[in-house]
Amino acid sequence: MTSSTINFDVTTLPIMTIYDFPKGPYPTRVRIALAEKNLQSRVEFVMVDLYKGEHKRPEFISGKNYSGTLPVLELNDGTCIAECTAITGYLDTLDGAPMLTGRTPLEKGVIHMMSKRAELELLDAISVYFHHATPGLGPDVELYQNSEWGFRQRDKALRGMRYFNDVLKNQPFVAGDAFSMADITLIGGLVFASIVKLPVPAECEALLAWYTRMWERPSVKNQPAFA
Amino acid sequence: MTSSTINFDVTTLPIMTIYDFPKGPYPTRVRIALAEKNLQSRVEFVMVDLYKGEHKRPEFISGKNYSGTLPVLELNDGTCIAECTAITGYLDTLDGAPMLTGRTPLEKGVIHMMSKRAELELLDAISVYFHHATPGLGPDVELYQNSEWGFRQRDKALRGMRYFNDVLKNQPFVAGDAFSMADITLIGGLVFASIVKLPVPAECEALLAWYTRMWERPSVKNQPAFA
Ligand SMILES: N[C@@H](CCC(=O)N[C@@H](CS)C(=O)NCC(=O)O)C(=O)O
Ligand SMILES: N[C@@H](CCC(=O)N[C@@H](CS)C(=O)NCC(=O)O)C(=O)O
Repeated sequence: MTSSTINFDVTTLPIMTIYDFPKGPYPTRVRIALAEKNLQSRVEFVMVDLYKGEHKRPEFISGKNYSGTLPVLELNDGTCIAECTAITGYLDTLDGAPMLTGRTPLEKGVIHMMSKRAELELLDAISVYFHHATPGLGPDVELYQNSEWGFRQRDKALRGMRYFNDVLKNQPFVAGDAFSMADITLIGGLVFASIVKLPVPAECEALLAWYTRMWERPSVKNQPAFA
Repeated sequence: MTSSTINFDVTTLPIMTIYDFPKGPYPTRVRIALAEKNLQSRVEFVMVDLYKGEHKRPEFISGKNYSGTLPVLELNDGTCIAECTAITGYLDTLDGAPMLTGRTPLEKGVIHMMSKRAELELLDAISVYFHHATPGLGPDVELYQNSEWGFRQRDKALRGMRYFNDVLKNQPFVAGDAFSMADITLIGGLVFASIVKLPVPAECEALLAWYTRMWERPSVKNQPAFA
């Protein structure tokens, strides 16, 4: 592992494309991963306008991502990788020295669990709230809304904040002692919380302190989502 | 990698616990992964009765899995790993020779994407349908139902079947040329489809043929879900 890392020259990687919406909470996750891995120079961003519904057009669905969401990573042979966690896993292992998705089986397991939990209990719940109980991307894109479900998911996200606050009382990072993909996912959740104006309750002090620490990381603070 | 595999003696692993519901679609995924990795002898199963709501009790939520779902893998130091994908990643890498979650960055990326897609577009959608638009686990456990949302998710799952049928017209396995975690996730989806009596449309011939092939695998056909 070590020798392949030392020998790994990022500039030998072909340029990849990322279908992106720069301030979006999910694309921000991949942008942070790119910065942590020093891979920004290997990527060209192509903007897909969510508010125009460009991600729901047939050519995007059939050619890039069946689920119709951003981000999508396209390799230079045309292979498309959607889903933030899958993209992060790919980018993190390119140099043979994973630092975001775990090195040992135990690290991998715990990081993946905590990242998934941050999606299920916070980020994805806020996304449903946004698309179903707020105007979301506007009437031309939000063709079906179920506001009761949306409000339920908002309440779930608030409970999720309290859960992660408890976690962060006992450890400095979401998956333990080191920064990982699970922190990135939770950052995505708080980015989305701020977009939908769902502030973290003031008594969640550990969560707020963690977020302040996250903002100090260059990979985080320079993102368009925080501009 | 190869040498560590050759030297890997499964019987040196401490016994792990899996909180389980033997016929459940999600627990079945981890049971298949265990069988593929030849790890069944390393696991003790503890039954948690979903129909009695044992997975929603405070001690389970706080001690085992905040999300209140099965399966959960507990290591002998008390660490709990929830989420099928996280458990599978852990089990798959224990011997240093991953065969379910990918060896190269590209394999890892594509397998994780396709597994997540099989969750989002099929398995998890059917789960929502089950819990919201059918009696689910019964009135004592299903304290809130949103049937309109449930039916929407059923329709999403039907579209998902057509999508995976298209994928399987062009390649033998969900993530390409080899059996992987993504196939296991889709098997979970079809297990749940059969529980809720949502048959795969007859015209999805490639999907049905793939499922028949999957059933021929010893890791699959001997599961309680198929008894
Ligand atoms: N499960 C996906 C979700 C991505 C996602 O929801 N992205 C947002 C952009 S911030 C999106 O495309 N939303 C548009 C929509 O759902 O209509 C992932 O983790 O990558
Ligand atoms: N995201 C979880 C979902 C697990 C899940 O939903 N498991 C089912 C058992 S088949 C469950 O616990 N359902 C009970 C409930 O949701 O009330 C995973 O992938 O492990």
